[in-house]
Amino acid sequence: METEIGCALGQIEHLIRYAVWSSGSSGIVIGLSGGIDSAVSATLCCRAMGGNRVLGLILPAAISRAEDVEDAIILCNQLGMEHRTININPILAVYRTMPDFSDKERPVGNLMSRIRMTILYYHANLLNMLVCGTSNKSEYLLGYFTKYGDGAADIEPILHFYKTEICSIAGELNIPESILKKTPSAGLWRGQTDETELGLTYKEIDTALRSLEQQGWKSTSPLEEQVLSMVQKTEHKRISPPSLFSLCRP
Amino acid sequence: METEIGCALGQIEHLIRYAVWSSGSSGIVIGLSGGIDSAVSATLCCRAMGGNRVLGLILPAAISRAEDVEDAIILCNQLGMEHRTININPILAVYRTMPDFSDKERPVGNLMSRIRMTILYYHANLLNMLVCGTSNKSEYLLGYFTKYGDGAADIEPILHFYKTEICSIAGELNIPESILKKTPSAGLWRGQTDETELGLTYKEIDTALRSLEQQGWKSTSPLEEQVLSMVQKTEHKRISPPSLFSLCRP
Repeated sequence: METEIGCALGQIEHLIRYAVWSSGSSGIVIGLSGGIDSAVSATLCCRAMGGNRVLGLILPAAISRAEDVEDAIILCNQLGMEHRTININPILAVYRTMPDFSDKERPVGNLMSRIRMTILYYHANLLNMLVCGTSNKSEYLLGYFTKYGDGAADIEPILHFYKTEICSIAGELNIPESILKKTPSAGLWRGQTDETELGLTYKEIDTALRSLEQQGWKSTSPLEEQVLSMVQKTEHKRISPPSLFSLCRP
Repeated sequence: METEIGCALGQIEHLIRYAVWSSGSSGIVIGLSGGIDSAVSATLCCRAMGGNRVLGLILPAAISRAEDVEDAIILCNQLGMEHRTININPILAVYRTMPDFSDKERPVGNLMSRIRMTILYYHANLLNMLVCGTSNKSEYLLGYFTKYGDGAADIEPILHFYKTEICSIAGELNIPESILKKTPSAGLWRGQTDETELGLTYKEIDTALRSLEQQGWKSTSPLEEQVLSMVQKTEHKRISPPSLFSLCRP
């Protein structure tokens, strides 16, 4: 298992270097939440490129916890990464003045995720860098991400790892203990945790996803049925928008 | 030719209705620039769904021309579409206060396009609607759009039409004359026009793209070589971000 992961990490570093080189970019911009996925992704970028070619952006909002920002800063210092903290609250506050603004959790949460994307890409455009995504396979397949928000990136180094795998990889990558032990959360509203919102633990989810994949996406239990239904309902987040374009290809 | 287009328009209306129905959405949100692509797209949405299920958002910035806003409003009234005008300038102004903000044309232009996307999706999320894209085949293949900005949508009704085809379709769809006659522009900075920025006319571009497609993307002239190179350099805008995910599929 450890050798397999070691080999996969080497491949990821190669993928990152190739993406930067082939696009003529000067480095990578990554958003850091203080969570495990962005910590692992940033570590892999720094291993691939050197910390001096990776810019970490820490983008807290009013609801963010101070310890998440601190953890992200500790990680950046440990990796020798340049980093900047930009509070997104003043930006969100102006969106709130739109005449038809309504303070509903989910649309506002998605808006926060998309505001973060605009800031990452603004810096990437300015500095001729790529934006690194931090999605793992579990949340990608469940569609548990914001379309064109945290789902928007130029490269996805950990997309082939299940969430439960990320946790074991993080242990090997010397990620700070406080990040390792944190309860997974998208951090889009107070008290939000992934497993409460999804209604399942990542262990259950990953077990079901593995079985479904092996069985050609046919469910053989109520748990698998539940997970499969989440995969199906969120397909639009993983495919190109419907058009007649494909029908017209030669 | 006219019958072909008529048939294609029927297919597009079907595609729009199916996308809305199958996603359980209540309608469509579309951004209107006062240009021909969004006018044609909005008209097709209204033909498919009825104007009362299409919300037009007009999102001018400081550099936008008053006549573009007026043309968009005239179109909405003609189609019986609900519409709202939200000036993005106050939002852009707060991004400008970021400590490392630099007033360069291209990154700021892309930022404006992404701000518009966040507003369209905020409304779509709030109202349980889909976001309609307005990309045509010429700009899509040339990569002449902002990744995760105007390139971000849930449905792309005119993606299979070349820009020169959009112009003839617009003539048949009773689009206001002032929109028909306008010089194509992304409107991201003052004086920007598509053809000046691209260095070629759409007639040249579409002729080259048609030949390239027929020839299996092999160029046989300097013009085709130039266009092919633009297609190749912007491939990253049309594909999923690189990852090891695909390698791990069964």
